[in-house]
Amino acid sequence: MTWIQKEITLRARSRGFHLVTREVLEQLPELREFSVGMLNIFIQHTSASIGINENADPDVRIDLEMGFNKIVREDFPYVHTIEGPDDMPAHIKAAMIGNSLSIPITDGQLNLGTWQGIYLCEHRNRASGRRLVLTMHGE
Amino acid sequence: MTWIQKEITLRARSRGFHLVTREVLEQLPELREFSVGMLNIFIQHTSASIGINENADPDVRIDLEMGFNKIVREDFPYVHTIEGPDDMPAHIKAAMIGNSLSIPITDGQLNLGTWQGIYLCEHRNRASGRRLVLTMHGE
Amino acid sequence: MTWIQKEITLRARSRGFHLVTREVLEQLPELREFSVGMLNIFIQHTSASIGINENADPDVRIDLEMGFNKIVREDFPYVHTIEGPDDMPAHIKAAMIGNSLSIPITDGQLNLGTWQGIYLCEHRNRASGRRLVLTMHGE
Repeated sequence: MTWIQKEITLRARSRGFHLVTREVLEQLPELREFSVGMLNIFIQHTSASIGINENADPDVRIDLEMGFNKIVREDFPYVHTIEGPDDMPAHIKAAMIGNSLSIPITDGQLNLGTWQGIYLCEHRNRASGRRLVLTMHGE
Repeated sequence: MTWIQKEITLRARSRGFHLVTREVLEQLPELREFSVGMLNIFIQHTSASIGINENADPDVRIDLEMGFNKIVREDFPYVHTIEGPDDMPAHIKAAMIGNSLSIPITDGQLNLGTWQGIYLCEHRNRASGRRLVLTMHGE
Repeated sequence: MTWIQKEITLRARSRGFHLVTREVLEQLPELREFSVGMLNIFIQHTSASIGINENADPDVRIDLEMGFNKIVREDFPYVHTIEGPDDMPAHIKAAMIGNSLSIPITDGQLNLGTWQGIYLCEHRNRASGRRLVLTMHGE
């Protein structure tokens, strides 16, 4: 076995920064069969993003949401407003944080730092479950 | 065949966010030979970047340019001004959006979401064609 | 040989943007054995990040630090303040710049552009050496 690829849908979440490490890992029992490799997480959307951040204090997630809202303001003079005031800021935040995340695999596990967790960053006020393509490759 | 790598030059574009999905795919006829794998797009520059965003309404591209200009202002007190007022903002935008993008390959195609396209984000007022390294790997 | 993975610790650096291309390459003598492949650099932290930017004028590094400080302000109304005023801005900057960087390998070398260097972006006022997971894969 060298390549494993699957498409999953995360459960719908409200706008904000959400730890999804456990929900992603539950879909990857094959991880333990790789001694070395890479996992790529690709989110098939342009108004939500995938990142890594602190996995401990829930206040960090509140501040990430607040901070990105301060930086990417809803009152910028957007032209594309037909999908609501949260839509264009969502596209800008997604461009900043990114759609594709590669994490090393070591001895059957993701080689994350102690304080790292995988985040779904949901930038829309209302959204349905977000689709991810998970691609593992290794030996 | 497991690895294919090539260097291409995108045609020069004006400052702004540009959909280049078609121009990239035209260089990758080998894509259809992979049932599973990854494509990495690496831009060999520090004042332009590569990302994924909405592929439909052209107004989104106008708003991405406007939004990033509001956030990364040309009137910050930069020291490195010798290359023009657009140069340092270009480096900051490139740091935010990124130089390297990995996209999963599934059944001979890029596994992009319905609304996703590949963007060249050109942050300089004037630039020549940007060089990309395209690396495909799979089976 | 197809996969090589190692964990290294960069020497501690002060807050700011630091060129670490040489320090990373010194740990990768095996690079020259790959004719084609990818290197992934993964930083196991959430208040420092890894990126690519201009490798020439040191003023660019000063302006990157200044610019990100202007954008991600320490006086935002953060809730998570127990680790100091530089901590939450560090998490936001790390979310923007990213923790994982993939660079193509060509003919035994990183296929960087002429003006590109690898950056450790240290967002904390004080930090110890940062841990990286380096994963090379190719043929």
